[in-house]
Amino acid sequence: MSLINRLDSQAGDFESRFMALLDRDGDAAVQVDETVRRILRAVREEGDAALLRYTRELDRLDCAEAAELEIPAERLSTALEKAEPAASEALTFAAERIRAYAERQKEEGWSFQDAQGNRLGQRVTALDRVGVYVPGGRAAYPSSVLMNIVPARVAGVGEIIMVVPAPDGVLNDLVLAAAALTGVDRVFTVGGAQAVAALAYGTATLPAVDKIVGPGNAWVASAKRQVFGRVGIDSIAGPSEVAIYTDGSLPPDWAAMDLFAQAEHDELAQSILVSPDSDYLDRVEAAMERLLSAMPRRDIIRASLSGRGALIDCHNEAEGLALINRIAPEHLELAVDDPDALLPSVRHAGAIFMGHHAPEAFGDYCAGPNHVLPTSGTARFASPLGVQDFQKRSSLIQCHPDGVSALAEASVTLADAEGLTAHARSAALRRPGGDQSA
Amino acid sequence: MSLINRLDSQAGDFESRFMALLDRDGDAAVQVDETVRRILRAVREEGDAALLRYTRELDRLDCAEAAELEIPAERLSTALEKAEPAASEALTFAAERIRAYAERQKEEGWSFQDAQGNRLGQRVTALDRVGVYVPGGRAAYPSSVLMNIVPARVAGVGEIIMVVPAPDGVLNDLVLAAAALTGVDRVFTVGGAQAVAALAYGTATLPAVDKIVGPGNAWVASAKRQVFGRVGIDSIAGPSEVAIYTDGSLPPDWAAMDLFAQAEHDELAQSILVSPDSDYLDRVEAAMERLLSAMPRRDIIRASLSGRGALIDCHNEAEGLALINRIAPEHLELAVDDPDALLPSVRHAGAIFMGHHAPEAFGDYCAGPNHVLPTSGTARFASPLGVQDFQKRSSLIQCHPDGVSALAEASVTLADAEGLTAHARSAALRRPGGDQSA
Repeated sequence: MSLINRLDSQAGDFESRFMALLDRDGDAAVQVDETVRRILRAVREEGDAALLRYTRELDRLDCAEAAELEIPAERLSTALEKAEPAASEALTFAAERIRAYAERQKEEGWSFQDAQGNRLGQRVTALDRVGVYVPGGRAAYPSSVLMNIVPARVAGVGEIIMVVPAPDGVLNDLVLAAAALTGVDRVFTVGGAQAVAALAYGTATLPAVDKIVGPGNAWVASAKRQVFGRVGIDSIAGPSEVAIYTDGSLPPDWAAMDLFAQAEHDELAQSILVSPDSDYLDRVEAAMERLLSAMPRRDIIRASLSGRGALIDCHNEAEGLALINRIAPEHLELAVDDPDALLPSVRHAGAIFMGHHAPEAFGDYCAGPNHVLPTSGTARFASPLGVQDFQKRSSLIQCHPDGVSALAEASVTLADAEGLTAHARSAALRRPGGDQSA
Repeated sequence: MSLINRLDSQAGDFESRFMALLDRDGDAAVQVDETVRRILRAVREEGDAALLRYTRELDRLDCAEAAELEIPAERLSTALEKAEPAASEALTFAAERIRAYAERQKEEGWSFQDAQGNRLGQRVTALDRVGVYVPGGRAAYPSSVLMNIVPARVAGVGEIIMVVPAPDGVLNDLVLAAAALTGVDRVFTVGGAQAVAALAYGTATLPAVDKIVGPGNAWVASAKRQVFGRVGIDSIAGPSEVAIYTDGSLPPDWAAMDLFAQAEHDELAQSILVSPDSDYLDRVEAAMERLLSAMPRRDIIRASLSGRGALIDCHNEAEGLALINRIAPEHLELAVDDPDALLPSVRHAGAIFMGHHAPEAFGDYCAGPNHVLPTSGTARFASPLGVQDFQKRSSLIQCHPDGVSALAEASVTLADAEGLTAHARSAALRRPGGDQSA
């Protein structure tokens, strides 16, 4: 059995195999939704008591009082002080680069006067309070802490609350060190749907937030979807993916390792390489066969590549880029000598790694742009997490006395056409001399 | 029985009455969700056949073939030509102002070089194809057509598909005229959850889109929530609301008519006036009593005001603005002589109408900023519909050979700390001389 699927864009079965590769709809997870609905209701109605109970049941973390769920600030700063110097330097380097990129995203308000002297504007302000979900246990990633909190801080969010489950009381010290580095305001050791519920509704101990961001498992995703509307949420993240387009100029060993890097996340992660050079695909496959055994996570890599991975022979560049656009990948590597020449043909991708020397791994950790990216083809309409997600806009409208007439006239006409008489009267009252006409 | 609720911020029962006023959670509408789930599945599996069947059953519009559901372009242009000149002039005036404001929102991409010569950027592109839902029947608003389509056009969306139900075959000609004015690409007479399903999944006749925007009833809202993820959606709109803050300088008749204008939308619309001047609130209430009988929609206004409306005595400005921030209103009128002095204290509002001469009605029709605004307190985290909703960002990362080392080193350190060996190797391979080290 081969390590990875091979597809040929001119084969008769290509369309069905390609569509199967992109099929991202698992079963509707109705049962998860029901369980989560119960948890949300319990935390909403019972507050801390339910939060403590679920944390005891699901994370085997037994606290007598909800206040014990909060990690003292000293524990965070101690984690940072005691971290390996190389690790804390790398975290600091990454945080600085993420901050520098985020600063450029910050939106400012503006206003202008129209021809009649009316003032129109767009005001931009930061969110008051944000909750950041950080997974615990096996997939505890300090890089995620930086990527979710730094842009919120740059936006000027008033208070940032982090939640991270501590199953069996276990916490990842480098996650705490990263939290310390970001200057997060408060951290609670809760997770799952119960943490999302507490952030959305608030409890006596854990304050309600205005928006919840951060990745999580199926329960967390379902909870975020269900509380959407009461609070804002970022996107619902699916499995991570990379698509590499290369004319064959990316060394096969590099291609193999880039595909492995994606596949090692979990069995559902997706690694796709598209090239018009069939012989090159053979060389990449040979490199993968040769390199796999040295990978500690080879079992996960193998499962991911055989289930969801693919080497696709696209026969020519135009067809290759068309496939890339259909994939709308979370990460795209344009591994060619002149990636700028291809860029205009790329319509959908979360992050684009240009040329041979920018592997996705740089983007995961420290290049600067966010590693929270649209998955599952949502790059067709969604964007990387950024400062924009922690700011909001308000429109401003102010009329100059000389500018009222034209607006009033059009408003009256359209309100009458829509049968909304009070709208029309409210507009007409602002006309010069209209004071007496109600 | 009084026309509108009166609250006093210093009364003992204020907190409970104020919270009841802001309680926006209806029952969970589980039954609607189930019905909608069935409709979505049917359209997804059966395509046009299900679309025709539901349109026949629910809108009593009987078409033999799905192609009959499309409105020919000539019908749109004829509607515009035959519209009352005053109406088509007002629509043109409004469309131009919406366009002018939207143009200023358009985001452009950027890139910069870091200290090591690496290139980092943010690319901004328009969505390929967008679906716009326009309600039909009783609440057929040509202004909504402009507000939803013009920003998409300004963003440069490739193709805009409008859907509008035609119950019993009835269409609003001014809605069609507005559609013609925006240069919408295609219009189909379908509505409800079946229209959302067709836009999300595509049928043989109606192409799948990347994002669905536009207001609708409970079925449409549930459908949008359920297809979110497969396509993008705008916010889930709740009932419309206005909050007016005034020191008493807004003429009582104007205040009354502004409150009526919001209340006439529907029974769930919410009109709140906050003032520190109790005598002024009496005068506004008297004006409302006097003016109501002349309003054609007085029954709706009365139901809305008695159920959801309120005049709130806030005793002082600081308390009044604190209440405004708790309301986080969709529309806020700052009806004072110097609204700029209050603006810094306003943290949450979808659109802010400054001073006495900018009633919400101007914003509904023709001021320029969008009338699709965050409702139900979501202005805490959400923004008005804008060009930004029809653009998406991609990150760009390109490494200069001299800039690789620092990124590789930090990536290797952090990947090793996270136990992701393939990430570390993928990064290490890009180091100078790293080609041979896989």
